[in-house]
Amino acid sequence: MRAALVDRESRIAHPERTSTDAKAGRDAVLPRFLDLLKRVESKAGDDGICGVGVCMPGPIDPVSGVLYNPPNLPGWDGFSLKSWLQEQFDYPVAVGNDANLAALAEHRYGAGRGHDNVVYLTLSTGVGGGLILDGKMYVGGKGYAAEIGHMTIDQHGPVAPNGVVGSLEYLASGTAVGRIARERLAQGEESALRDLCGGDVEKVDAAMVSEAARAGDALAKSVMDGVAHSLGTGIVNVLHIFDPDVIVLGGGLSNSLDLLTPGIERQIDTHAMANFRGRRPIVKSALGDDAGLLGAAALVFADVDGG
Amino acid sequence: MRAALVDRESRIAHPERTSTDAKAGRDAVLPRFLDLLKRVESKAGDDGICGVGVCMPGPIDPVSGVLYNPPNLPGWDGFSLKSWLQEQFDYPVAVGNDANLAALAEHRYGAGRGHDNVVYLTLSTGVGGGLILDGKMYVGGKGYAAEIGHMTIDQHGPVAPNGVVGSLEYLASGTAVGRIARERLAQGEESALRDLCGGDVEKVDAAMVSEAARAGDALAKSVMDGVAHSLGTGIVNVLHIFDPDVIVLGGGLSNSLDLLTPGIERQIDTHAMANFRGRRPIVKSALGDDAGLLGAAALVFADVDGG
Repeated sequence: MRAALVDRESRIAHPERTSTDAKAGRDAVLPRFLDLLKRVESKAGDDGICGVGVCMPGPIDPVSGVLYNPPNLPGWDGFSLKSWLQEQFDYPVAVGNDANLAALAEHRYGAGRGHDNVVYLTLSTGVGGGLILDGKMYVGGKGYAAEIGHMTIDQHGPVAPNGVVGSLEYLASGTAVGRIARERLAQGEESALRDLCGGDVEKVDAAMVSEAARAGDALAKSVMDGVAHSLGTGIVNVLHIFDPDVIVLGGGLSNSLDLLTPGIERQIDTHAMANFRGRRPIVKSALGDDAGLLGAAALVFADVDGG
Repeated sequence: MRAALVDRESRIAHPERTSTDAKAGRDAVLPRFLDLLKRVESKAGDDGICGVGVCMPGPIDPVSGVLYNPPNLPGWDGFSLKSWLQEQFDYPVAVGNDANLAALAEHRYGAGRGHDNVVYLTLSTGVGGGLILDGKMYVGGKGYAAEIGHMTIDQHGPVAPNGVVGSLEYLASGTAVGRIARERLAQGEESALRDLCGGDVEKVDAAMVSEAARAGDALAKSVMDGVAHSLGTGIVNVLHIFDPDVIVLGGGLSNSLDLLTPGIERQIDTHAMANFRGRRPIVKSALGDDAGLLGAAALVFADVDGG
């Protein structure tokens, strides 16, 4: 868990952090969370605080502030984080989902700055999505929109653990890169990855596959090409659906954009509708790990300022 | 081509129509189009006219009013319909794409009334899409958004004539129903469709397949089930991406919703993320053939009223 003071120019001050230790359960996490917030609050001095913004993983209703089955937070399903926060503080409080808030932060302060229509995708353990449409964060009727990672791109493909068939997340996340490489190694394909992983194939992950691909390993390059193909399919869908000004890619796998971009662009130029061919919408996220923190602050400023 | 007077309560008066005869070319169509508009204008009497709205098939930039390769209108690519219209009339003019405007009309006057987030899909020759998000029509950065029909749902599937792979349109339009049935008949499968089409398999279309399916024909039911499966995949994607309040289905194939809905609902309950299962978002369009006319009027009123 991280907290900090953030001003309207997106400057971060007095950052603090503490371990979440989610396994200990909600009743153990909340006091530590509150302590973290109070520590940061005490540093504000004369500048004043205009609100408290919180960025959470997983689906959350931004109006009611109720969490829906957040991954890695057992026991938090149905908890109204917003109501709880409002009981602790006299300032306005605002809560949001991590990918939505990263999108907002990139739009206000990062790689999407100056653009009205920004689609954000984080390529990490999963594939999260956030939408800025006509200048505003779009979260849908109940606040669960922008789950672009759970878009089916291969309806005869493998079923992900959450039940979604052939999803972008299952085929093009950082996790997918490692999984696909390990599956192909298990089938006996030759690769420098066998040495890179020290003989323990189970240790092969996306970073290792990217490293091997850059060094020219055929299997690793083929895995990255396949993931770029799936990611390209998803990006073409995003173009057709949103006609965005930019698509901001974040998350660990975005550090391998050099390996993925040619395959993505090939998909755009071959399989997009004619009026989208030649588009080069992809930019790398600019805010990295601070996107959630800055997005939570931006949400508060938007609420307070009525924007 | 159709034209009419429309008031703020969506009442249609003095409807007129004339043949487009697009083959004759733009220079032959435009005078007939202008004559149609002038005929309707002359009926306005003392009520006054506050603007001219036009609904066009195919991609159109709603700001510049430039058409992009409209299907079935050879020679119109790059033509600024809006500039031309503005030269003919002193009122404000507004132009839009047929599916976008149908979405706007259903939102203002039809099946999406009272909802802030409406996704409209027309299931017809193709699959068109329109988006009302947070109460406003969304058309994207260059006005080409909402091409939901060209979303890839099967990235190893057949390539549509426009280059898009395994698109919702190619797998779940009215055209798709006829094509899939004809392909299976050509492979020798038995079906009552052989009698229904009077022995000419090439005449089999979606209406015929629906009729045979309702009468219990196994092949026809199987074709409709397959299309419902693909349509369900697309609808699940729409839920994940937009979390809409309603999904309005229009077009000829929406007359077969009785045959398609069970398969769509099965997809939602099996393959949507947990927080979307059990959703029943689908409603049939209420405005039918008047959707484009009413949407063009709604666009004018929105422009004039600043909403």
